[in-house]
Amino acid sequence: MLTDLYQLTMAYGYWRSGTHDKEAVFYMSFRHNPFHGGFAVACGLTHLIDYIRHFHFEQSDIEYLASLTGEDGKPLFDKEFLDYLSNIEFSCDIHCVAEGTVVFANEPIVRVSGPIVQCQLLETLLLNIMNFQTLIATKAARVAIAAGDRPIVEFGLRRAQGTDGALAASWAAYIGGCTATSNVLAGKIFGIPVKGTHAHSWVMSFNSELEAFEAYAQAMPNNCIFLVDTYDTLGGVKNAIQVGRQLKDKGHHLTGVRLDSGDLAYLSIEARKLLDQAGFNDAVILASNDLDENVIQSLNDQNARIDVWGVGTKLATAYDQPALGGVYKLSAIRRPGESWQPRLKLSEQAIKISNPGILQTRRFYSKKTDGFVAGDMVFSEDCPPEGTNVIIDPMDFTRRKSFTADAPFIDLLVPIFIGGKQVYRTPPAIEIKKGLSEQLSRFHPTIKRLLNPHEYPVGLEQGLHKLKTQLILENRRVESEQELNTPQGQWTTGQW
Amino acid sequence: MLTDLYQLTMAYGYWRSGTHDKEAVFYMSFRHNPFHGGFAVACGLTHLIDYIRHFHFEQSDIEYLASLTGEDGKPLFDKEFLDYLSNIEFSCDIHCVAEGTVVFANEPIVRVSGPIVQCQLLETLLLNIMNFQTLIATKAARVAIAAGDRPIVEFGLRRAQGTDGALAASWAAYIGGCTATSNVLAGKIFGIPVKGTHAHSWVMSFNSELEAFEAYAQAMPNNCIFLVDTYDTLGGVKNAIQVGRQLKDKGHHLTGVRLDSGDLAYLSIEARKLLDQAGFNDAVILASNDLDENVIQSLNDQNARIDVWGVGTKLATAYDQPALGGVYKLSAIRRPGESWQPRLKLSEQAIKISNPGILQTRRFYSKKTDGFVAGDMVFSEDCPPEGTNVIIDPMDFTRRKSFTADAPFIDLLVPIFIGGKQVYRTPPAIEIKKGLSEQLSRFHPTIKRLLNPHEYPVGLEQGLHKLKTQLILENRRVESEQELNTPQGQWTTGQW
Repeated sequence: MLTDLYQLTMAYGYWRSGTHDKEAVFYMSFRHNPFHGGFAVACGLTHLIDYIRHFHFEQSDIEYLASLTGEDGKPLFDKEFLDYLSNIEFSCDIHCVAEGTVVFANEPIVRVSGPIVQCQLLETLLLNIMNFQTLIATKAARVAIAAGDRPIVEFGLRRAQGTDGALAASWAAYIGGCTATSNVLAGKIFGIPVKGTHAHSWVMSFNSELEAFEAYAQAMPNNCIFLVDTYDTLGGVKNAIQVGRQLKDKGHHLTGVRLDSGDLAYLSIEARKLLDQAGFNDAVILASNDLDENVIQSLNDQNARIDVWGVGTKLATAYDQPALGGVYKLSAIRRPGESWQPRLKLSEQAIKISNPGILQTRRFYSKKTDGFVAGDMVFSEDCPPEGTNVIIDPMDFTRRKSFTADAPFIDLLVPIFIGGKQVYRTPPAIEIKKGLSEQLSRFHPTIKRLLNPHEYPVGLEQGLHKLKTQLILENRRVESEQELNTPQGQWTTGQW
Repeated sequence: MLTDLYQLTMAYGYWRSGTHDKEAVFYMSFRHNPFHGGFAVACGLTHLIDYIRHFHFEQSDIEYLASLTGEDGKPLFDKEFLDYLSNIEFSCDIHCVAEGTVVFANEPIVRVSGPIVQCQLLETLLLNIMNFQTLIATKAARVAIAAGDRPIVEFGLRRAQGTDGALAASWAAYIGGCTATSNVLAGKIFGIPVKGTHAHSWVMSFNSELEAFEAYAQAMPNNCIFLVDTYDTLGGVKNAIQVGRQLKDKGHHLTGVRLDSGDLAYLSIEARKLLDQAGFNDAVILASNDLDENVIQSLNDQNARIDVWGVGTKLATAYDQPALGGVYKLSAIRRPGESWQPRLKLSEQAIKISNPGILQTRRFYSKKTDGFVAGDMVFSEDCPPEGTNVIIDPMDFTRRKSFTADAPFIDLLVPIFIGGKQVYRTPPAIEIKKGLSEQLSRFHPTIKRLLNPHEYPVGLEQGLHKLKTQLILENRRVESEQELNTPQGQWTTGQW
């Protein structure tokens, strides 16, 4: 039921027009790497599988749908259709890139094929999950690039978009590069490490900061990261040091201090000096306060002495680009038993023209590039690759790149469901995370640069390029024959 | 469990230090009206009540918490504390502005009082819900201001941040000003009207657009809004007209067309001409494609002929400001039976200094301003208002405004839970919506202007202003006595 109403009105349309047995292929892709970056990290498959395993309509759903009316006040759906809906058994094939795969704009990351009604009913949920989690995993990967080898704790729950906006963000942020989350439920459900110490309110609830730190140290002598900025940050560091000495005397250990406001470059450098002078060289400095990859990079450039980064709002909401804009396009259709007919959607903007066929993304590795990944080829499994491994830029057909005939490659879309049966399980989070880190190490640093990255080559296989061009020209010919009746003396927009 | 770990480590700290029976007062407010606007619409109470009614720790939660370890590898929490947690019965008082209340920056919109541990455990969830839903309701109210009397359908599900990010957005968008949503589950759960017709894929699944429209019209002759831009928009309008004539011949009715790309100003004007020339004067034009209040206002300024607005990503993610940034601050504390001690958090930035006391927001209406709302006074119930109704701008104490002694007023924070028992039920969505519309009509148009709005007066009651000033000076005196040991020849930041 987590779908757009038009998926159901279309399902009804297919059913009423007797075309609901048609089989379709859809694919998901996005048009621009988010955050003006050079790559993205696909995420969401784990939760998508969970949802799809429970694909069905409950009795209460059917009753609700039966209550809907159209513009004429009559029921929107008839009873036979609702019976049909309630008896649908999921039978699609789903291919998807593995959770935590490095992906790029304009290549398929999910492919769904099967009865058209089912493909459509999945669309909205699939886009919701993959769009958001891919966005956050990518943001986290960027933050991790800025943070280098320093740990990052995700603190986004209180500002995230809804409860699941927070939960899903904690998952995706961990996959993408965070070390832990503050979100206890995410820890429980996903097995992600959780971290946290105390808030300003802890300090304010005592008569003085010193008293507050002492009480905390007494309760949790081995988990003391004191938040030092409730009243005055460097005064707070001194109080933390005083309590750190008490801890030391009792055989415990001051874990560190946390800065949550003010000039983090200046304050972290001064706090480090105070801690070092007092002999607390291994006490960490955790910093937070509206951080993102750009602020972290700037603080590092200023030699800020920050050991652990706390990143919240800007990560969990992908503040500078809060939506990925991934789309789900029909690319082939057939009556059962017939052969596939490729389909594309036209647009005046080349980047919005979809690709036809049964699409797959092939990633080439090359010895020529020192073991780095060399480029991605989008091809149709229904349109076998033509000869050599040449890819053509879909935005500029004169721009081409070829891979050697013996270049090793992998096909990124792997079978997840076949005929509605799950054939794939995602690995545990920690393994996905390690896999991503290994993958990222095989991409050239210029691709991973935060500002003005190098463009990674993603292109169409030659046969697919020809098919696409031919379909565009066929469709445009029909269009240009439909001459526009523009009243005399009126401007028309300068459309091609 | 949907909370930050530090709420639990603090709870443990209070419990270990024997201060968990302390009673506290916290309040939520936000620092800036979102979207550079002049107001906000509070939203989230309905869902907050649902969550709080189910406030408890399950056995599996306790088992998970028992598995957590600290820096030393030993259990983070001891068994007695976890027993205490699992036996907590919610007993706080919660006061909140009614769902769909017009609110402003720097005034309390929720107040929680009771045992400090419970107040803290609620913080994160309360902020998550109120921050996000207030943000979206406000965005929807702005979109509705731009749309005037034209209906708005919320289409955000596929790009929203997580499944609940979408559901909560559908609710808040409806409260704030939308007419309907595409989200079927939101329709089922919240009783919001749902709308939808068909997608590009419907058209692409047939051999031609005309065939696709005909099939749709046959299936749902009274619910036809044809999406006309799959191949060529004005060609699509002509096909819609052709099928509209067939519908008319059979006694049905062409509901309208939908534009989802291209120049919406030009295309809507041309589509209107084509429809009118063909006698379909009452067929509506629905437009969508990355719309927000600014684009809608611009299209209206260009005399675009758009009857229904479909607003998705930009609304459901509050794209231009995806987080509200509301905070939850301790404002008073006491041992049971003792009197309240007011508390505030200092900051170098005046806007980040919290207010002390048991806060309430009083809204004054005035005959002088033609029945418009006149201003809001923040006061402490523990510090009775001093004499006349004067408010003082917390950012500039020389700026004051007074209301006549007989000015009618309402106190915005109403009791929701008392001693943990629910004493308030939110009205049905449609009534909340009507209430908001009535409220908005009593605010001066300059407050509601989208660009550079007039600043609505929100100030501190005189007694509260004095208390706050006194507490700041006391705290600052302590600070200034803690002289900073800055090494010679080093710069310090120019801190006050």
